[in-house]
Amino acid sequence: MTKSDYASSGVDIDAGNKAVELMKDAVKSTYNSSVLAGIGSFGGLFDASALKEMKSPVLVASTDGVGTKVKLAASVGRYRGIGHDIVNHCINDILVQGAKPLFFMDYFATSKLNPEQTAEVVTGIAEACKESGVALLGGETAEMPGVYQPNEFDVAGTIVGVLERSEILPRQDIKAGDVLIGLKSSGPHTNGYSLIRKIFANASLENKAPELNMSLADALLAPHRSYYSVLQPVLSEIKGLAHITGGGFIENIPRVLPDDIDAKIQLGSWEMSPLWNFIQATGEIETEEMYRVFNMGIGMVLVVDKNSVSKLQASIQEETFIIGELVEGKQKVQLIQ
Amino acid sequence: MTKSDYASSGVDIDAGNKAVELMKDAVKSTYNSSVLAGIGSFGGLFDASALKEMKSPVLVASTDGVGTKVKLAASVGRYRGIGHDIVNHCINDILVQGAKPLFFMDYFATSKLNPEQTAEVVTGIAEACKESGVALLGGETAEMPGVYQPNEFDVAGTIVGVLERSEILPRQDIKAGDVLIGLKSSGPHTNGYSLIRKIFANASLENKAPELNMSLADALLAPHRSYYSVLQPVLSEIKGLAHITGGGFIENIPRVLPDDIDAKIQLGSWEMSPLWNFIQATGEIETEEMYRVFNMGIGMVLVVDKNSVSKLQASIQEETFIIGELVEGKQKVQLIQ
Repeated sequence: MTKSDYASSGVDIDAGNKAVELMKDAVKSTYNSSVLAGIGSFGGLFDASALKEMKSPVLVASTDGVGTKVKLAASVGRYRGIGHDIVNHCINDILVQGAKPLFFMDYFATSKLNPEQTAEVVTGIAEACKESGVALLGGETAEMPGVYQPNEFDVAGTIVGVLERSEILPRQDIKAGDVLIGLKSSGPHTNGYSLIRKIFANASLENKAPELNMSLADALLAPHRSYYSVLQPVLSEIKGLAHITGGGFIENIPRVLPDDIDAKIQLGSWEMSPLWNFIQATGEIETEEMYRVFNMGIGMVLVVDKNSVSKLQASIQEETFIIGELVEGKQKVQLIQ
Repeated sequence: MTKSDYASSGVDIDAGNKAVELMKDAVKSTYNSSVLAGIGSFGGLFDASALKEMKSPVLVASTDGVGTKVKLAASVGRYRGIGHDIVNHCINDILVQGAKPLFFMDYFATSKLNPEQTAEVVTGIAEACKESGVALLGGETAEMPGVYQPNEFDVAGTIVGVLERSEILPRQDIKAGDVLIGLKSSGPHTNGYSLIRKIFANASLENKAPELNMSLADALLAPHRSYYSVLQPVLSEIKGLAHITGGGFIENIPRVLPDDIDAKIQLGSWEMSPLWNFIQATGEIETEEMYRVFNMGIGMVLVVDKNSVSKLQASIQEETFIIGELVEGKQKVQLIQ
């Protein structure tokens, strides 16, 4: 056997150090006065003395990935948006419980570390954290020869937030007659990409698609948006929130419904990007399946008392759609054509 | 194009549900009275009202993976230990700052979900969490066709812990004359596996290796141990802790040293498993390189005032080794043959 050392075994410590160098400033730009230590130390330290002022503080945590959107991003060499995807997905996931996000931790792994690619993803993560006032407290970059396919990578993240115990969503008074308000998605967000990649396996992603008035790459890689800044000011007016992720309306809305209530969704009641018809037609997919896989243009659904609807719509700083209502039923979603 | 649906695109939602079913009881067994919601809800909820009783609570978070130990585990079909690896690695990483671990979040991803394999890993995670009183508050299982190599998987985790601000380690009074105490590792823990796999690429992992009196698989896949239960009772007697992970003594001990102090390590001052000689001899690796890649039998190094040494050694409920001392220098490690 010839002499071994770590570099020749496929792990490049220098590439890791270079990646850290490239991303360091972006990461530090997310630090606020609560961050006591971050990059370089073993674990990130976050001053939690503000929790002492709360009546009954509850920490909320969520871990997620962005699915095979990473594969689509890798195929066209666009990495930064994936950073926004993972952060905003996680922020939305704890927003549905009413939480304010405090800090984020990322995990990035690939078969062979490319410092620039890694730094692009982490810079995107830092940008998205900064937009929502979240500290990027720490993370891990791993080079895993033989585990990932060549040129592929994966990214995962964990968000930790806080809220008052009395303000946990969904509220207990969700009932028939409540109104469903939808907020626009920015694209497929982070769900349905294995299907999308299959449907468009032979498409030219970078060419302008006449049906979309933009390239497929632009339409499909639009970063998952965060709903935190627009919903945080009005959370007290909301009874429940459903983040429309994998499983679409059909699996996500029931998570906030009492077991004797259905959600009746009026299809066509919101503005839809032509992307959805294009996906459905190209893939010859049934409508019900579309609503089980994709967000179909609505990334967040609010459950609101019918008497609060107009006040809430006036308060939210973006376009909103009344997409349906709650009726007696069995915790199901009814799609009304 | 033929009709598409989610299952035929490579994502098997039923396999995911089956994995959840298999791991559910193990996960729930980690819940303590602080867990307000867990599996099935969007984010895990952890009652943080105990932090109100603290003077100046600081949250500590760390994210990590277990490196290509996952590849070795996959090659022999032994998954549960990897769950212990990821949890204990993370617990030790925040223990070096003095933190008590509160909750853990896991991420498991693979090319094609095998419910039994996934459940084995997550059950191992839950077992390790339970051993250290940590709630497994949430996690994510992802099927990523085309991103991972066939039959490979990756696992990452995030731990969140808490400590009083005044008790953050390392303390500021680390100085020449302090003594280094080592605690045994249980094997290579989670570091150096790309090199290990290269060295033993053609070895029969399951056969008993006469040099080791056990199989290579047993020696190399021994789970990363946690130092929490043995060190937590004596933390106030310790000035600093170094978790010996990637980079070995040479990169990890300096992280707790003032810039004018060196660590002088007396080689041969602790009991070493024959595994280390076997790795070094088989791979023809220089001694210095061994100490840069592996923990060499010592997984945690304590920096202790020389007047506290005997009291501390008597208090710690396992064998301890005086492996060196601090001297004036330049924040380096000196290996004394």
